[in-house]
Amino acid sequence: VSPRPFQVRELLIALNRQARTPLAHQLENQLRDAILRGRLASGQQLPSTRMLAEQLGVSRGVVLRAYAQLGAEGHLTLRQGANPLVRVVGVPGPDILSGVHDGDGPRFRYDLRPERPDLSQFPRGQWLRSLRHALDTATDAEVGYIDSRGLRSLREEIARYLARARGLAVTANRIVITGGSTHALVLIERVLVRQGKRVIAFENPSHELLHTLSRRAGLEPLGIPIDDDGLLVDELRRSAASAVVAAPAHQFPIGLTYSKERQLELLRWADETDSLIVEDDFNAGFRYDRAPIGAIQGSAPERVAYIGSISKTLAPGLRLGWAVLPASLVDDVAGELEGAMQHLPALEQLALADFVRRAEFDRHLRRLRGIYRKRRDLLVRTLRNELPQYPVRGIAGGMHVFLELPSVADEANAWARARQAGLGVESIGEHALAGYGGPRGLLIGYGAEHERALIRAAHELAGAIRESVGRGDKPRPLTHLA
Amino acid sequence: VSPRPFQVRELLIALNRQARTPLAHQLENQLRDAILRGRLASGQQLPSTRMLAEQLGVSRGVVLRAYAQLGAEGHLTLRQGANPLVRVVGVPGPDILSGVHDGDGPRFRYDLRPERPDLSQFPRGQWLRSLRHALDTATDAEVGYIDSRGLRSLREEIARYLARARGLAVTANRIVITGGSTHALVLIERVLVRQGKRVIAFENPSHELLHTLSRRAGLEPLGIPIDDDGLLVDELRRSAASAVVAAPAHQFPIGLTYSKERQLELLRWADETDSLIVEDDFNAGFRYDRAPIGAIQGSAPERVAYIGSISKTLAPGLRLGWAVLPASLVDDVAGELEGAMQHLPALEQLALADFVRRAEFDRHLRRLRGIYRKRRDLLVRTLRNELPQYPVRGIAGGMHVFLELPSVADEANAWARARQAGLGVESIGEHALAGYGGPRGLLIGYGAEHERALIRAAHELAGAIRESVGRGDKPRPLTHLA
Repeated sequence: VSPRPFQVRELLIALNRQARTPLAHQLENQLRDAILRGRLASGQQLPSTRMLAEQLGVSRGVVLRAYAQLGAEGHLTLRQGANPLVRVVGVPGPDILSGVHDGDGPRFRYDLRPERPDLSQFPRGQWLRSLRHALDTATDAEVGYIDSRGLRSLREEIARYLARARGLAVTANRIVITGGSTHALVLIERVLVRQGKRVIAFENPSHELLHTLSRRAGLEPLGIPIDDDGLLVDELRRSAASAVVAAPAHQFPIGLTYSKERQLELLRWADETDSLIVEDDFNAGFRYDRAPIGAIQGSAPERVAYIGSISKTLAPGLRLGWAVLPASLVDDVAGELEGAMQHLPALEQLALADFVRRAEFDRHLRRLRGIYRKRRDLLVRTLRNELPQYPVRGIAGGMHVFLELPSVADEANAWARARQAGLGVESIGEHALAGYGGPRGLLIGYGAEHERALIRAAHELAGAIRESVGRGDKPRPLTHLA
Repeated sequence: VSPRPFQVRELLIALNRQARTPLAHQLENQLRDAILRGRLASGQQLPSTRMLAEQLGVSRGVVLRAYAQLGAEGHLTLRQGANPLVRVVGVPGPDILSGVHDGDGPRFRYDLRPERPDLSQFPRGQWLRSLRHALDTATDAEVGYIDSRGLRSLREEIARYLARARGLAVTANRIVITGGSTHALVLIERVLVRQGKRVIAFENPSHELLHTLSRRAGLEPLGIPIDDDGLLVDELRRSAASAVVAAPAHQFPIGLTYSKERQLELLRWADETDSLIVEDDFNAGFRYDRAPIGAIQGSAPERVAYIGSISKTLAPGLRLGWAVLPASLVDDVAGELEGAMQHLPALEQLALADFVRRAEFDRHLRRLRGIYRKRRDLLVRTLRNELPQYPVRGIAGGMHVFLELPSVADEANAWARARQAGLGVESIGEHALAGYGGPRGLLIGYGAEHERALIRAAHELAGAIRESVGRGDKPRPLTHLA
């Protein structure tokens, strides 16, 4: 039950200092991989943080982060004053091999990741009704090889919905149905690459996944600073980018809304430089204090590619989203789908068309807004009571808040302590691009956990933050780890 | 009603002699585009074949082919001894703009395209039952962000099914769920491109769409000749290709089955040259005279990437297929999906898992085999009665036969005459890669048309062939066109 101590050289851990992936993530990934592939057996001891750090030539903080994450995921048992132990739960199964997106990702005691929807709210009964309608009414041609832009009936419903609810200037002809908004972005990026583009600008910070996928698509993501009014267009103007991804209605992860002036400035930049704005409206349906601001696409449909999905509003597993495109891009983006025979499934498209047509979508959103608003209020109240010294930022919308902390070190320490406690928060640092110099802190999602769990989690999190913040400027080792 | 004659210079037709697309196809596409975009109004006269051929500097046959195709599609009214007239039916709608896959493609009086399934056979009731089961039993995580390889429950059912029905050596861990078999091929090709591969070999002839998509993915498709036993492995050995797409159980479009010796020779090539065989088992479930031969993947699971789908057996609109992969490729292929957040929809996966588990899939295939076998018998009998001089080739399987004709010219003339009559056949030439020197003729599908329509179509087709074959070695202009 207590095998010989783990020898690091057996593991063939190879950290790449040139890679963009932080060393702690690399180490974490390689250790997880070794555990899942059975190279590290259950009960196996890992070296102490000090010993592994020495052998790898990295700081102890790097090892500490990796251990804390794996502990939170349940792959390691962390023991006060002793080496961590590998913990293999059941038959791991290669379903969770590293390198492959593993469904819901790491498991946490409380899932506080930002922008995670409450999957239990998916309206199964109503969706079945729409699927039945789809099966009852689909023509034979509609279950055949369909238009790569998506079924016309869905594009028409989405056009009507977006014009009404988000103020878009849109007809069905401008819409390409995709497998989600991120998928839509990647398709647009592939077209940009074919056009010879090499750089794409992002708000700094913005969602890390989008940066990673942009690189994979062949574009270099460039971070443009933001202030309280939105992206700094002057910085964009000075950059080499001829395309920018922005979320004016609700910036992720800071949670601000662009001022009207900044929106106009951004549109002027696009006009004057003949550039493209990709408007990521990933959750603009969710504003709790007032009506959300309209999409900027409505002011400049030939300058803006608008992307959205039902991943946050219905369920990610349905894999349906859309791009609303300038005329010049419609065929090219549809061609990217066509080029891989990657049309979206017909029955789901027909079901969504029915769901939107019967106004079930509106009804469902109204219901969800009530649920998330209440969770947000609870979370914000708890954080303000427990941690009055740290501001809670972000508009009353979406599914997370941004808790600002004094420094990078505080962010890192709070994150590590929270993760170690099984609290699945994220940090600004995870979503920052090179050159980031803005506020730091934690991103705390309230979408996935129900009210009572959320309150418990918020109290635990406040404790973890109190324990770890303001204790100096350097990331502080968690002393009870060996 | 009879506007001034059409002036060709107004149309901005630009033919590219360097392009791989045949001139007739280019002309046809540009004319269709002009009609659909409203640049050519209804009732507008087109120039005579002779005049347009002169102005474009092409042979009259090129114009003739283009006109015949557009006539068959209903975009032109072809008139004996007079110029064709543009015919705009209803509001065309930008749904059918060129460059975008237009659903079921061109409309024919009889759809005799090869490998088109009978969409009316899609078992809607049973599928709804499986969808209801999916909605009743899906976990919240399953409708969340799922494993990019597909849901485990589906991969397990597909693994069991393929092992049983097709003799594969497979576990769920080796399967990646895709949006169809062509989608699976493109994902594999993207991995090959990332590995630095530049050439992919195909049987010559093989499906044209696969060649086009390979080029788009960044690979040069290379045609390898076939004989009655299958692909000529010696030719493959002499080529630069380190990957080949082959369909040993049922070659498309010739319709042969590889001999056991040739299968082994192909596997030896893969072993000796460390190369990859992509086994396209697009319709191997459909063999009517005996059990289909097993997949060669079963003999060499580390050398063969097996691809398949339910497009022919259930419906293309479901967009579900699979790749069964060597261990070394699983993560890379899943990574291609992951890299575009392009996971396949969860409920459809769960529904298919249920459909296979309840043996509805087997039952449905058995029923379909009965239907297609009868249609094949009818078609073959009619063709043999009416055209005893031309051999009908291909095993008793799939959804088309190959009617061999004496020469390239005969093939071209018969194709044009058939298309002009609204008979949607295809020809060997459409699917040939450079250097093809094998048999010529028409590909006649019997999947999409019901029995009585099929018999009528076969009689009409026989007439068209009798009128157009054996009248000389050059493609013969259709004299009643102006």
